Amino acid sequence: MEHKKEKPVRVVIALGGNALQNKRAGTGAEAQLKTVRETCEYLAEISVKGFEIAIAHGNGPQVGQIVMASEAAADTFPVMPFDVCDAMSQGYIGYHLQQGLKYALNNRNRNIPVLTIVTQVVVEKDDPAFRNPTKPIGPFYTEEEARALTEERGYVMKEDAGRGFRRVVASPIPRKIVEIDSVRRLWDSTVVITVGGGGIPVIEKENGVFEGVAAVIDKDFAAEKLAEDVDADILMILTEVDRVFLNYGKPNEKALDHMSVAEVAKYIKEGHFAEGSMLPKVRAAAKFVRANPTKKAIITSLYKGTEALEGKAGTLITFAK
Amino acid sequence: MEHKKEKPVRVVIALGGNALQNKRAGTGAEAQLKTVRETCEYLAEISVKGFEIAIAHGNGPQVGQIVMASEAAADTFPVMPFDVCDAMSQGYIGYHLQQGLKYALNNRNRNIPVLTIVTQVVVEKDDPAFRNPTKPIGPFYTEEEARALTEERGYVMKEDAGRGFRRVVASPIPRKIVEIDSVRRLWDSTVVITVGGGGIPVIEKENGVFEGVAAVIDKDFAAEKLAEDVDADILMILTEVDRVFLNYGKPNEKALDHMSVAEVAKYIKEGHFAEGSMLPKVRAAAKFVRANPTKKAIITSLYKGTEALEGKAGTLITFAK
Repeated sequence: MEHKKEKPVRVVIALGGNALQNKRAGTGAEAQLKTVRETCEYLAEISVKGFEIAIAHGNGPQVGQIVMASEAAADTFPVMPFDVCDAMSQGYIGYHLQQGLKYALNNRNRNIPVLTIVTQVVVEKDDPAFRNPTKPIGPFYTEEEARALTEERGYVMKEDAGRGFRRVVASPIPRKIVEIDSVRRLWDSTVVITVGGGGIPVIEKENGVFEGVAAVIDKDFAAEKLAEDVDADILMILTEVDRVFLNYGKPNEKALDHMSVAEVAKYIKEGHFAEGSMLPKVRAAAKFVRANPTKKAIITSLYKGTEALEGKAGTLITFAK
Repeated sequence: MEHKKEKPVRVVIALGGNALQNKRAGTGAEAQLKTVRETCEYLAEISVKGFEIAIAHGNGPQVGQIVMASEAAADTFPVMPFDVCDAMSQGYIGYHLQQGLKYALNNRNRNIPVLTIVTQVVVEKDDPAFRNPTKPIGPFYTEEEARALTEERGYVMKEDAGRGFRRVVASPIPRKIVEIDSVRRLWDSTVVITVGGGGIPVIEKENGVFEGVAAVIDKDFAAEKLAEDVDADILMILTEVDRVFLNYGKPNEKALDHMSVAEVAKYIKEGHFAEGSMLPKVRAAAKFVRANPTKKAIITSLYKGTEALEGKAGTLITFAK
């Protein structure tokens, strides 16, 4: 059908939480499946345009639910370690995504396999993040309960904005995707779903021994690592807004259609991007194009993904402008 | 190192529950990891002998735990559908297996990737098993609670040997492994962990739409289907005993070192093999060699796996004798 065989453009897509669950549909697995199916319609459109895609995704609400369920059953079974909860969330979300995407692709007569790979991501045990854990996970506790959990299980507990105490874990930088060779091998033929929830965090010991740790790897940084490792042309981070904004939510807010890495650095310094929200996204985007200045990053919403790849929407991040 | 490049022998290994969890080590995830690491030492030995292996595994205790945790948190979150619990168990068990096996292989200087694939298995919605669900899952309930669950969620509840009521689901025959093309593609280069827990059961609707169902696919039958589909030479089912027995546990019990499919049929008829225990294993073994009479099936313990592949242990099942 094609006139000339061009090298397909490779896109790593990082899906935000709203692409998997949203308040409108509800929070359970059945609601998630409905949301994921809608999401997959948009992803399939991108694939149909001829882009080769791989999918990374977050897992915040899902892994939170798994942790809470495990805590609720603590009288009956030992509580699941956090790395195992992550692995479970990869199975859960990957299953829905691969089912939904396969359906959406079939409907468009695009017959390519979709595959979820249980993925471990190496972090350094000396990562400074381990000295200052910041990511809250699981249920709220009273101060007394929190103290008991610290004593009994070694959890680091922090007060969370007056709502009680929660366990916090580190958010270290992803250093290596353990299963990357297989992702590379599958890429040409298959839509791979990988580094779910940022990957199952493991530390590497002597002789290639990996050991799970309690940590949350930022999914945008994991997607960035993936994009570098598979030599993707584009890292596309999908979130709730169509574009990155300066002065977001203020009367003088301004949507950006293009940023250089120098501008990203400047805007970060000026405090335009919120921690745990737009900040990791612009950082991951800038990191990707800094690693290879011929590449592009895009931050946009799920609904504008296809348009953004055509240069008609979203915020483009390039090395220079 | 090899004198001549021979076609490697392909073995699909079906791991029983005792290879993943055992009472000695305990029931939590940390105990499982310990057990799995031991198991992987044996699996790595098989790989080192030059066999190309893929791993299928059960998930009974793990998925039971996931269901119970989800029920325990039912006040906070909607209960997870059973297909999702299966997907979660694939992530959980696959993660431990791939970590443990990679370690055991590295230790033996065998550097091959190990990969867990979230795997859906198609069953027929008209499978007679759906008319008579037999597989108990999740917690015990009182008769009153059981009645409420039937009304509210449509669960089929059965009394379980005087210990209370439990939900039962069907155990249909696996008809198609959705991700089989990717398994085939990876086989040569990679140890693939797939059809965990017998696979996530789905029914196929029009136009390749798959939809999860509450069912338990027997893991030995799923492994058999896998072995047929990848054209494996050997289906090896690992269980708690070194060999299949006639009159098992009786004074006149007799270990078998070789059975033909005709003998399997005869012994089944004579009632030698227990439902939900040795019966599905010998059935799966016989099905495999019946589908291709040049192939072999082996039933043995984890500890005798390597010896059995050398013809020195286990029970061999061939088409004729």
